[in-house]
Amino acid sequence: MSTAGLYDVIARRRDVRAEFSAEPLDDVVLDRVLGAAHAAPSVGHSQPWDFVLVRDPATRRRFQEHVHAERATYAASLAAERRAAFKRIRIEGIRESALGVVVTYDPSRGGPRVLGRHAIDDAGLYSTCLAIQNLWLAATAEGLGVGWVSFYREEFLGDLVGLPDGVRPVAWLCLGPVTGLQETPDLERHGWRERRPLRHAVHHETWGC
Amino acid sequence: MSTAGLYDVIARRRDVRAEFSAEPLDDVVLDRVLGAAHAAPSVGHSQPWDFVLVRDPATRRRFQEHVHAERATYAASLAAERRAAFKRIRIEGIRESALGVVVTYDPSRGGPRVLGRHAIDDAGLYSTCLAIQNLWLAATAEGLGVGWVSFYREEFLGDLVGLPDGVRPVAWLCLGPVTGLQETPDLERHGWRERRPLRHAVHHETWGC
Repeated sequence: MSTAGLYDVIARRRDVRAEFSAEPLDDVVLDRVLGAAHAAPSVGHSQPWDFVLVRDPATRRRFQEHVHAERATYAASLAAERRAAFKRIRIEGIRESALGVVVTYDPSRGGPRVLGRHAIDDAGLYSTCLAIQNLWLAATAEGLGVGWVSFYREEFLGDLVGLPDGVRPVAWLCLGPVTGLQETPDLERHGWRERRPLRHAVHHETWGC
Repeated sequence: MSTAGLYDVIARRRDVRAEFSAEPLDDVVLDRVLGAAHAAPSVGHSQPWDFVLVRDPATRRRFQEHVHAERATYAASLAAERRAAFKRIRIEGIRESALGVVVTYDPSRGGPRVLGRHAIDDAGLYSTCLAIQNLWLAATAEGLGVGWVSFYREEFLGDLVGLPDGVRPVAWLCLGPVTGLQETPDLERHGWRERRPLRHAVHHETWGC
């Protein structure tokens, strides 16, 4: 393939809140996007992820109410200036997106001795996140938007979609057609936080260098 | 872009152990691959990742010795049949790859009140994993291989590359040119674990459905 195509998708990908168009999402496209997620690497080939597709308006309304309450909790923790900045920032498109995808992690998947997890138990959680990024890029390439909502209590979301004990929600992803994607991430546009130069993130041989 | 190109990269991506060719890695290509990682989404735009590039043969030898000791610990925990199967499986290409990339997570990046992390503290760790998957796909598109090594104790690796207190190693990635990529994941080829059908991972409205 052209590497340029991949880099273009990586650069265009946004965390979408306001741009969902409320159009329905084609099932064939959804299958491709979920297939991309499912093709992610996983520790010990454990494939510990699942995807709960939520379309029910009542479930989404309940989740949105919870998210708004958590938003208020967070806002109350901020100093006045940051609170004012936060007020301008949307954090979800739960009801406008075509559907919600609850991505979960099952630590029991693959049995008690998953290859590669004996020293780092979180490696299974990491695998689940790799699946999410595959999903996100595939959706972007398909012209869709994804918005990761993290203003929730895991216990609330687990109860909401009936997760068994031990299965952990990792993300609520708003997914669906969009009117377009912003060129600049929302949090940069709204002056919340700047991009860090890549060179600050790269070290040679040891952390200090 | 053509969506087919992205899906092709996602399908071709492998977790590489044996196929590193020991050729050097061009710095311009490395920059592009790290730039892809750095373009990942992150909770509150915190960009909590760093990349420690390890080329020093002495550091890599020490890490490999540690990994082999952890391999033996894991092998000793297995029943005889699984231990025999594990014996056939390579878990690292630390010294044959062009370099090691230690990807780290700094929970203090972005201050004490990261937007989107008040309810789910692990969200910063999740962001770091999204960067890893961007890196992995970019490397694959560039014709390189990536192998995620997780047979290590975090404390050992943190000491080895001089991470400050609180900064957590998330992965050691072997990165570099390869002779080719396997069509089937190693753990499937060696009969360790099968691929799970996508339909088993997809649920509707709630977990049970």
